[in-house]
Amino acid sequence: MSKVKVKLARKVLEANDTIASEVRSSLASAHVFALNVMGSPGSGKTELICAAAASDPVLATSCAVIEGDVESAIDGERIAQAGLEVIQINTGGACHLSASMIRDALADLVLSSLDLIIIENVGNLVCPASFDLGEDERLVCTAVTEGFDKPTKYPGMYAKAHALAVTKCDLAEAVEVDPHEIAGRARRVNPKLDVFFTSARTSAGIPKLIDRLHAAILSKKKA
Amino acid sequence: MSKVKVKLARKVLEANDTIASEVRSSLASAHVFALNVMGSPGSGKTELICAAAASDPVLATSCAVIEGDVESAIDGERIAQAGLEVIQINTGGACHLSASMIRDALADLVLSSLDLIIIENVGNLVCPASFDLGEDERLVCTAVTEGFDKPTKYPGMYAKAHALAVTKCDLAEAVEVDPHEIAGRARRVNPKLDVFFTSARTSAGIPKLIDRLHAAILSKKKA
Repeated sequence: MSKVKVKLARKVLEANDTIASEVRSSLASAHVFALNVMGSPGSGKTELICAAAASDPVLATSCAVIEGDVESAIDGERIAQAGLEVIQINTGGACHLSASMIRDALADLVLSSLDLIIIENVGNLVCPASFDLGEDERLVCTAVTEGFDKPTKYPGMYAKAHALAVTKCDLAEAVEVDPHEIAGRARRVNPKLDVFFTSARTSAGIPKLIDRLHAAILSKKKA
Repeated sequence: MSKVKVKLARKVLEANDTIASEVRSSLASAHVFALNVMGSPGSGKTELICAAAASDPVLATSCAVIEGDVESAIDGERIAQAGLEVIQINTGGACHLSASMIRDALADLVLSSLDLIIIENVGNLVCPASFDLGEDERLVCTAVTEGFDKPTKYPGMYAKAHALAVTKCDLAEAVEVDPHEIAGRARRVNPKLDVFFTSARTSAGIPKLIDRLHAAILSKKKA
């Protein structure tokens, strides 16, 4: 990158970090756990959120979703139909959510009534990794249909994540991709990753993911 | 976006456009047709290029591939194994190729021996759309495994493309996605799109895509 590009990128990221700290403080005061869900377009982020809501209606009542898309409200509508409170953000061309969008969305939520905020980022395996949104943790979704090699080709996304959901595992045989190969490559980038092998269709892996969310919510409440 | 961000983005794009014009001139002088292939991570761009090379060994001898990835040479190696000349670019974190990367790559190619340059962009359905690489045409790959709705959610990518390959069509039934729904949504964004329904596994749609490439190469030779 040219010097001017690098300098500006740093300025933009610094401004974002300042707002992300504000968001993090608001969430800490309200004891709300925030999860930033990222992954390629079509990696199954929305489907996983809907499957989790369907599996645990109690969790769903204390959860809101901030839904990020370049355009359209298709995903927001799917999440609302799953019974979750949802705030749809359209970035209007931008390739990632930024902390200021989250700050604005929080103003429309009653934090005291929530335990969990799920932020679904724009489908993109590169840019969202650089933008702190004030979240507690990051979950990357990677579908077996994307092939075995995404963590090796887009390491930045996996390096900064806390958990990985290998999604659409019911299709692993059809696409001849071993979900464990994806997990192994991701762990080579980030050995601390918690990995979940999921299928929104069969509900495989969803209960384990929900258990982890409950544990995270509980520890945030005690914090 | 903030004013400073917009101003800088414009500056970066203007600088890129200038270099793209240089690239376009070089390619015009050499009568080489250049295709910029874009799409999500795991949409099957590399696989489609390899399938085309396998179907038409004659085309393959006069074609070079400029392979863009954030990291790794996995795709470059696959393309080399398919018998194509390949130049691997690692963007080192950047989410798209830019014209200067193509200009540098062209310096390593003997243009007079080529009819066709295929540029495989970084897997990303947002950012690469904004960067002119000096190409003649753009081909977007969208896999049925990504769902039916990508053109509606990421319209910028489809609006600026010349052709769409709906890929992995052999999996359409397994994922319950109608390839024509993807095509219809893409054509609502861009009615002029040429659409190809392809499967690298069964070779469906590959001959039509190759016919189109030959026609484009021919018309570039006459230009």
